[in-house]
Amino acid sequence: MHLMRIGAPGAEKPVVRLDDTHYVDVSDLTPDFDERFFAAGGPALLTDAIAARPRRTFAGERVGAPIARPHQILCIGLNYRDHAAETGQPVPAEPILFTKSPNTLIGPHDDVRIPRGATKTDWEVELGIVIGRRTSYLDTPEQARDHIAGYCVVNDVSERAFQMERGGQWSKGKSAETFNPAGPWLVTPDEIPDITDLALWLDVNGVRRQTGTTKTMIFDPYVIVHHLSQFMVLEPGDLINTGTPPGVGMGHRPPVWLQPGDVMELGIDRLGTQRQHVVGPR
Amino acid sequence: MHLMRIGAPGAEKPVVRLDDTHYVDVSDLTPDFDERFFAAGGPALLTDAIAARPRRTFAGERVGAPIARPHQILCIGLNYRDHAAETGQPVPAEPILFTKSPNTLIGPHDDVRIPRGATKTDWEVELGIVIGRRTSYLDTPEQARDHIAGYCVVNDVSERAFQMERGGQWSKGKSAETFNPAGPWLVTPDEIPDITDLALWLDVNGVRRQTGTTKTMIFDPYVIVHHLSQFMVLEPGDLINTGTPPGVGMGHRPPVWLQPGDVMELGIDRLGTQRQHVVGPR
Repeated sequence: MHLMRIGAPGAEKPVVRLDDTHYVDVSDLTPDFDERFFAAGGPALLTDAIAARPRRTFAGERVGAPIARPHQILCIGLNYRDHAAETGQPVPAEPILFTKSPNTLIGPHDDVRIPRGATKTDWEVELGIVIGRRTSYLDTPEQARDHIAGYCVVNDVSERAFQMERGGQWSKGKSAETFNPAGPWLVTPDEIPDITDLALWLDVNGVRRQTGTTKTMIFDPYVIVHHLSQFMVLEPGDLINTGTPPGVGMGHRPPVWLQPGDVMELGIDRLGTQRQHVVGPR
Repeated sequence: MHLMRIGAPGAEKPVVRLDDTHYVDVSDLTPDFDERFFAAGGPALLTDAIAARPRRTFAGERVGAPIARPHQILCIGLNYRDHAAETGQPVPAEPILFTKSPNTLIGPHDDVRIPRGATKTDWEVELGIVIGRRTSYLDTPEQARDHIAGYCVVNDVSERAFQMERGGQWSKGKSAETFNPAGPWLVTPDEIPDITDLALWLDVNGVRRQTGTTKTMIFDPYVIVHHLSQFMVLEPGDLINTGTPPGVGMGHRPPVWLQPGDVMELGIDRLGTQRQHVVGPR
């Protein structure tokens, strides 16, 4: 199942995507794809309804993030062997956790805004995990399968100077508004034969900058969810950005940073594609 | 004005405290002290109602955190000159930002639970700031005065091994459930003559462990809110823990860590006191 939210920012309607042109409106079954929806059962609640309802046709509506603003956005750093090598840092022994402000979440084709004073704004295509139920102290990574509602594309936009040169802890460079495009869809796990065998890519102005595969992840989604559940309680609808493959702007020699007017296009096998215009500060 | 939330966890009722024995119920004016309440005007909305309503008498109800689960909990590290010296670290040139999971928020007298596998659980009495309105790119620290809804006591409970020995970024050791007691009250700024002249203290099992004053803060609340607003958008109801004075368990020689059965008592001038029992892992 492909969950989508369409409509103006703050007034998105929850729908189930059938194909490129058709969807089913489920806004009378749930006001949103939010914590309450996932806690109540999530996508499984919609299965019967879809077949019985009229197919509607997309009419150029804006696409929002596929989930409402979550309780938290957690991020895993340096989670691809080839990206860790690119940054010159050792492969982590345990998942590196940092966070983003939840209000960074935007639609997959919305503008990404460079913050005031920024000099090193960068891209990161990533696999996003959405948590399906309250999760604490899982015994095994295998148990995490029952706690994942689905997956989506995210762009973990980062300001490297804010992240690393402004007094410590990465969240300072991860939390500017518009810094977390997500979507276009939340795809349920049953539609993905192998989450550890998906290609990821990102272009800037038509130039391929990132190419990777979830095969080179150091910690796979099940290991990540199991690990995090030892340190905190994950709530239904929480989003986890699982790290980026090689090719970020910081990894180029010399580095390449985003500028107003740039266009980012990115995607992951089976999870769809995003396209964002980069705009200057407010 | 003193805002409180009383009742069972998850079913707290918003009230205004008049004195140690009396309160006014405002639950028909707002369902909670949450993002929507603060965005709509916050405590100012209640002023007229208080005088016209019956005084009720506290009857031993549980006290919840004085605000609903916020959009984010931001924390400032090493923000007291004397605490920075205690940890052997230099005084930061800019506020150090880290985060806690919002679902760590509990009432001021609720149990604090040591997480599984913990070995270095520690206390931190702190001044908490609650944001009153959406805040982005303030021009001056002075402007922050209009963006602060009030202040409260918080205990920024920390697991030092998780924070510093498990792969980087402090949030891993700050986000266990029950790790952010707050309250008993949210006190509006008009009731505090000088926020930079308040004594803070914390006892463990009746032994004074922390003694400090907000006079030795490196970055005061206005500087903090102004600074954070350059990096992210603060939402109404967001909570900011502003750092701890000397005397944390980690600062003792040898270090002192919390154990099941311990009792923490802590307070700040004008903001009330907290008392938590420490319990073992689930």
